Amino acid sequence: MKIAVLGTGMVGRALAGRLAELDHDVVIGTRDPQHTLSRTEPDSKGIEPYAEWQQTHPDVRLVTFPEAGVYGELIVNATAGTVSLAALEATGAQNLAGKVVLDLALPLVYSDGAPPELGFAHTDSLGERIQRAFPDAQVVKTLNTVGKDVMIDPARLPGEHNLFLSGDHAEAKDLVRRVLGEFGWPQERLIDLGSIKTARSVEMYMQLFFNLFAVFGDFDFNITVMRAGTH
Amino acid sequence: MKIAVLGTGMVGRALAGRLAELDHDVVIGTRDPQHTLSRTEPDSKGIEPYAEWQQTHPDVRLVTFPEAGVYGELIVNATAGTVSLAALEATGAQNLAGKVVLDLALPLVYSDGAPPELGFAHTDSLGERIQRAFPDAQVVKTLNTVGKDVMIDPARLPGEHNLFLSGDHAEAKDLVRRVLGEFGWPQERLIDLGSIKTARSVEMYMQLFFNLFAVFGDFDFNITVMRAGTH
Repeated sequence: MKIAVLGTGMVGRALAGRLAELDHDVVIGTRDPQHTLSRTEPDSKGIEPYAEWQQTHPDVRLVTFPEAGVYGELIVNATAGTVSLAALEATGAQNLAGKVVLDLALPLVYSDGAPPELGFAHTDSLGERIQRAFPDAQVVKTLNTVGKDVMIDPARLPGEHNLFLSGDHAEAKDLVRRVLGEFGWPQERLIDLGSIKTARSVEMYMQLFFNLFAVFGDFDFNITVMRAGTH
Repeated sequence: MKIAVLGTGMVGRALAGRLAELDHDVVIGTRDPQHTLSRTEPDSKGIEPYAEWQQTHPDVRLVTFPEAGVYGELIVNATAGTVSLAALEATGAQNLAGKVVLDLALPLVYSDGAPPELGFAHTDSLGERIQRAFPDAQVVKTLNTVGKDVMIDPARLPGEHNLFLSGDHAEAKDLVRRVLGEFGWPQERLIDLGSIKTARSVEMYMQLFFNLFAVFGDFDFNITVMRAGTH
């Protein structure tokens, strides 16, 4: 499948690299590829320059947002949630129409020393905002409840830990389920929460996720839903 | 220990009944005991009248909020979260001073047919509001992430599922840990998230909890945090 991952950060790279390993045709979209490639020093978070990462992933092409929109049959939003709407606008509403948008972004706001917080939540969610802004796209919110390493390799954690899906389009969820299955997520671990409005709940969960990060010191965890009479 | 449970709903009754079974001296506080006892029909949610419940729990005394405040060495807030501050005000700031307030309430707002939502969240929490309103009390937020049956009998669910603690007072958390231990919660399953500000995250989690309720049709579940390299 032709897949466009939007966002050149750690999460976008992890997903794009894994999808290419799985033999998909993958591009990464960014605002200005020349600018992205011109950086030669690690950024403020210590992330290696994109150009260095690209050397070990020659099968992933870096393109502009609109080029990514034209190319991708599936669009993966891995941009920073605070700029996702602008990135998708640049990708082009006409390029998103009729396509599945897998949205895993979070509108995180960072302040020194503290766990990140959500810029907006509770009465709205990024998943809903994207679906409202691009009504002809089929938005599926998922993967946002785990760190990048767990996203693409759930077997690194013990137990039957879960992932959630939110969205208004059943066939779009089926496509996303197949991709998650390729990452190693057993289908019975995927919990369909319902409409895109339920993106609110998985985004709100992230405050607990970041508090747990603060306790553990790493993102190498996920939750399992334990029900009476099962397991 | 002398324990005052505030709130005569299903959650307050479940906790008071279990605490009395555990040989604590338990009162339930309410605004107007005569009014509470005068009801003879199930309420709008189908909950049996308090007077009926009392017949099977003669060891739990029903008292006014201020009487509960004077009596309790530990105060358990099991009122509806939207009225908790008023209930605690009636209980009396002077009666809460220096005591542990175990807060398990949620500011839920119900609308027909849909899962309940939080009246406020994200930028504030009920746990924080209570601690701010009663600075001389020692508020510990816990138990709000599970249904009443799981609260008092965690063994009804499989697996090593977790509970979270939030609060500014270490000794208060120790007291709450002991009570949770009496309910059957192994100490290693209790995750201390930090200050009372982290009550925000366990209250925000509840939107996911209620979406899961909508999927499962019951409250008989909880989450286990699975970490790499453990279990």
